[in-house]
Amino acid sequence: MEAVDYLTDERKKAAFDVEAMKIVWAGSRHAFEVSDRMAKLVANDSPGNRKQQEFQKDDRTMLPRKELFRNTLRKAAYAWKRIIELHLSEEEASELRFYMDEPAYTDLHWGMFVPAIKGQGTDEQQQEWLPLAYKMQIIGCYAQTELGHGSNVQGLETTATFDPTTDEFVIHSPTLTSCKWWPGGLGKVSTHAVVYARLITDGKDHGVHGFIVQLRSLEDHKPLPRITLGDIGMKFGNGAYNTMDNGVLRFDHVRIPRNQMLMRVSQVTREGKYKRSDVPWQLVYGTMVYVRQQIVSDASCALSRAVCIATRYSAVRRQFGSQDGGPETQVIDYKTQQSRLFPLLASAYAFRFAGEWLKWLYTDVTQRLQANDFSTLPEAHACTAGLKSLTTTATADGIEECRKLCGGHGYLCSSGLPELFAVYVPACTYEGDNTVLLLQVARFLMKTLSQLSSGKQPVGTISYMGRNEHLMKCRCSVERSEDWLKHTKVLEAFEARTIRISVSCAQNLSKFENPEEGFAELSADLVEAAVAHCQLIVVSKFIEKLQQDIPGKGVKQQLETLCGIYSLSLVHKHQGEFLATSYLTPKQASLANDQLRSLLTKVRPNAVALVDAFSYTDHYLGSILGRYDGNVYPKLYEAAWKDPLNESDVPDGYHEYVRPLLKQQLHNARL
Amino acid sequence: MEAVDYLTDERKKAAFDVEAMKIVWAGSRHAFEVSDRMAKLVANDSPGNRKQQEFQKDDRTMLPRKELFRNTLRKAAYAWKRIIELHLSEEEASELRFYMDEPAYTDLHWGMFVPAIKGQGTDEQQQEWLPLAYKMQIIGCYAQTELGHGSNVQGLETTATFDPTTDEFVIHSPTLTSCKWWPGGLGKVSTHAVVYARLITDGKDHGVHGFIVQLRSLEDHKPLPRITLGDIGMKFGNGAYNTMDNGVLRFDHVRIPRNQMLMRVSQVTREGKYKRSDVPWQLVYGTMVYVRQQIVSDASCALSRAVCIATRYSAVRRQFGSQDGGPETQVIDYKTQQSRLFPLLASAYAFRFAGEWLKWLYTDVTQRLQANDFSTLPEAHACTAGLKSLTTTATADGIEECRKLCGGHGYLCSSGLPELFAVYVPACTYEGDNTVLLLQVARFLMKTLSQLSSGKQPVGTISYMGRNEHLMKCRCSVERSEDWLKHTKVLEAFEARTIRISVSCAQNLSKFENPEEGFAELSADLVEAAVAHCQLIVVSKFIEKLQQDIPGKGVKQQLETLCGIYSLSLVHKHQGEFLATSYLTPKQASLANDQLRSLLTKVRPNAVALVDAFSYTDHYLGSILGRYDGNVYPKLYEAAWKDPLNESDVPDGYHEYVRPLLKQQLHNARL
Repeated sequence: MEAVDYLTDERKKAAFDVEAMKIVWAGSRHAFEVSDRMAKLVANDSPGNRKQQEFQKDDRTMLPRKELFRNTLRKAAYAWKRIIELHLSEEEASELRFYMDEPAYTDLHWGMFVPAIKGQGTDEQQQEWLPLAYKMQIIGCYAQTELGHGSNVQGLETTATFDPTTDEFVIHSPTLTSCKWWPGGLGKVSTHAVVYARLITDGKDHGVHGFIVQLRSLEDHKPLPRITLGDIGMKFGNGAYNTMDNGVLRFDHVRIPRNQMLMRVSQVTREGKYKRSDVPWQLVYGTMVYVRQQIVSDASCALSRAVCIATRYSAVRRQFGSQDGGPETQVIDYKTQQSRLFPLLASAYAFRFAGEWLKWLYTDVTQRLQANDFSTLPEAHACTAGLKSLTTTATADGIEECRKLCGGHGYLCSSGLPELFAVYVPACTYEGDNTVLLLQVARFLMKTLSQLSSGKQPVGTISYMGRNEHLMKCRCSVERSEDWLKHTKVLEAFEARTIRISVSCAQNLSKFENPEEGFAELSADLVEAAVAHCQLIVVSKFIEKLQQDIPGKGVKQQLETLCGIYSLSLVHKHQGEFLATSYLTPKQASLANDQLRSLLTKVRPNAVALVDAFSYTDHYLGSILGRYDGNVYPKLYEAAWKDPLNESDVPDGYHEYVRPLLKQQLHNARL
Repeated sequence: MEAVDYLTDERKKAAFDVEAMKIVWAGSRHAFEVSDRMAKLVANDSPGNRKQQEFQKDDRTMLPRKELFRNTLRKAAYAWKRIIELHLSEEEASELRFYMDEPAYTDLHWGMFVPAIKGQGTDEQQQEWLPLAYKMQIIGCYAQTELGHGSNVQGLETTATFDPTTDEFVIHSPTLTSCKWWPGGLGKVSTHAVVYARLITDGKDHGVHGFIVQLRSLEDHKPLPRITLGDIGMKFGNGAYNTMDNGVLRFDHVRIPRNQMLMRVSQVTREGKYKRSDVPWQLVYGTMVYVRQQIVSDASCALSRAVCIATRYSAVRRQFGSQDGGPETQVIDYKTQQSRLFPLLASAYAFRFAGEWLKWLYTDVTQRLQANDFSTLPEAHACTAGLKSLTTTATADGIEECRKLCGGHGYLCSSGLPELFAVYVPACTYEGDNTVLLLQVARFLMKTLSQLSSGKQPVGTISYMGRNEHLMKCRCSVERSEDWLKHTKVLEAFEARTIRISVSCAQNLSKFENPEEGFAELSADLVEAAVAHCQLIVVSKFIEKLQQDIPGKGVKQQLETLCGIYSLSLVHKHQGEFLATSYLTPKQASLANDQLRSLLTKVRPNAVALVDAFSYTDHYLGSILGRYDGNVYPKLYEAAWKDPLNESDVPDGYHEYVRPLLKQQLHNARL
């Protein structure tokens, strides 16, 4: 058990207080305590004397679909039972589901169905439906996306036509492409859904609205008449999202009472008149900010998990460099490994702090909305859209990079990385396709620039554009590599780069007669401007974090190093933009790279402790390569024998398909 | 069936002779004919009156491991039966296995076991073993990698100790980490293996050598005494490489006759003396060049397949931009889609021609080796290693990018893309980890540079370094965007960039007292130099292809466009390096981007025809999104119902786990 001692040695190298870092990572002592308690509960929960661990998941990648799904239903029910038994608070229940780490219909029920009713339902509707939903007497999902329509919500085809003779809406899928397609929980479990459909009254199309529709009988769970329901089939990866019943739903003139249209923002009267209430429609943006800040925080979780696995295994794995028959070099000591792994470690921390700040932003936006102040909305919307796109793309790519950094063994399901990747990647597409979102950010940048001349002062994350005159002409003042450690220099570099490529886009746009045509033609460049803006936000929120009071020996210093790695690895990766805009000289870019190299060396002895600070249990990590004790090889060996193929020495099919071949008797074989 | 007409319209837009392009893609008319015949055979083979298509694969992602594996055994046996019945040539048989498109033990038998005996066995050994292998009376695999040892072959721990008293070798696994781990075909099927082990005679370690070892009884297929054998468990993805029995193998003092050491290059005599024959050891490089050229050619296949799916679906899918209720815009018309998709289309073609050239290189190297001319070996080795690394990394990333370009539906297994990705990614790790290979290329670059002063003229793909004086000081002469269409200007840019970053690495290296330390410290930069060199090779081979006689209306013009897209998208992506080395001005980099944009527009109407030219059958593509007829939505809908979850309306587990929850009776439930 050499490896066990091995990671202990690694932990001794750390020059900071890991316990204090755990609290920084969690956001607060309270958050840490809740999360820690729930993680341990899930990891160990097995009441009574039964041997099976109730939340066991290491067989997940081997189960055929039906068994896998059945098992998820069991876990979801068990979790709900425990939540009731232990009187868990909403926060605790949500953490418990998080550490359960298995996509299930409950995610949609609590994360989409309930919030949709809360956000879009009238007080009466909330009183009618929420108590049922809170007790799970009904199970709901969120049916928006259609087979032919995803990003473009306004293009949805499902119709809800008001019939004044019966005071009902007729919900209908007029075409094959109008089938609801993808909603989680829809395929096999949900009894109800919030369905998005075009509201039609009096022959007039009022656009897309939400309706509560019952889908299945509460008695025998069969689909109600005129409703076709099913699962849409296998998705990427073993286990992964196949625990979820993403579904298809087709309506054939299904009638629902008028009061099942969600009527907080607009109503249809008994006579079929369409009205808008005085509730500001901008409220939907509040929900969007909420959902997207959650996605950013999830990104830091997923990425940190992959980084934790890759970092620990990189300290265990040795390859090449043996001298005089001694042990080979730990792969974490190779600069090629460090230069790929540590920027991801830094990104996990960076996204964590960006997510924390977005939580604050959500509160701020909500308060302003309640006070009818919509002034910060466009900026808040652009920055949440942009950060959602930036962090999910970086996380998806980062998980796969971590898998590659684990060499061949990362390809085994027992490494946990394949499932982590497969379950994560949809985040790049759902809640706004990442490219579509970046184009929204770009539009906001162009608009902000065009308003500068009219004297409108940009606010929040875009306020740097108010200093455009300085930023357009200044030059980087870095002279030695240490200068790159100064926050002001780093910030200015990112600000100058963003504003310069934005201005260059704006200039190119102005050459087009038709602005929309120009926007389409230059969209690839506009996306680059949006990415630059989003990276600037992440860098600046990391720096703001560093300016707070951070207790714990050496903690702040580690974060300084990580912040430096995050920003300078971006300077290196995008040096083309920094150089092309003449903000940096090649010499200064090269000094940034020198400083980056020395920060990589600095973080090396702290790397294992920095991933320990995520305080993930082995159960949650679900990775033999990422085991806390580093005891990788014996456990890999042990796990192999659990594969169904190893139930017998001679495999099923040998007698029919292998023996006849070896014995040259294939001509007789029935194949 | 709108979509059907739709792709017909797309095909009408093509401004070139697709049939001629098919032959260019295949390499020759003969190659096209063989490949086309075998592809159709596999797609349609179903002799007799049985309904099942023998090579059916669309259920693959739903099958549990044992059924999946059993089914692969069936297909492999069936393929072998057909190969015999139809008297297929070696080339035809290999194409048939390719279009079968399912990793199986036969890949290792034909691709590694047989070549190892051919390359490393003496004439007598070949006469003894090859006839058995050719008839598949024995099935062999290639047992090199160990649990603790991958890239560093010289670090393998398995021992083969000569026992002169019995004239035998004792094969032994002294530690857990010395278990053979990963070899395909090992886990459940192979009867024999070429095992790599440290040869020990007379207490002396002579390093790693190959041995033929029987693993399983030819009578009952049970592992032979003292041999532990098993499958290493589930790997990434549904279906994918889980059709292969990658295995674990542990020896407990297993005895084999002396004549089962592969003795072409070195021998052990009856007395236990170790001798080297006069067969040049460099022969192993010949094999390596062969295997890697195959990998490059496979990369172009895998990437082209993903691009074919994404291109066709991008022409079918519409989103946003509807005017006056008309159809929405095809997503292939968006510049953001084009700027991500078309460089991948261009890469598929570029890698195809690089692979073609590597085939020639292999012949050239083989002829030289036979004439004892080893002069071109280092260069050939560096360039095959580099191209293996470059093309497999770009292909793995490219497949995932294509998946994302298909939006949500790319996440469904029925899109074919998840399995294509999962089955492809190991190529980045096997036959040389991609980062390790780039470091070898970098070493070669540094060595070539250091030898320039001594007047040694570099040859082949590195010969441009002979023009280092010019390339170090010249400046790009591009003045208008059209100038970027000139081959000489593009080539010079790539040459200048590579030599300049290489020289800068060499200068930084020279500052270190210990060169190895310097190499380690600067390895991340050295990798960048290696990538630049490899990209230059691909660009220059594409340009060489264009200088050949290419028949067919408009074919050459399309290839010119693709070559421009490949090289200018790299100039854009790596503009930092072109600018930092002061070869380009920001203005010239921006002109390259302008030209790139106009090439994207140029390729747009030809895109569907350019992927048709790969002539993949729908069976081989295995993707509903990539169907030739574009009839995507009805087929997606149809396929969903085949999922096992849809066998019943009410899912397994409802009564135990959902109903009690809905009815508030969980406290009684047994969960």
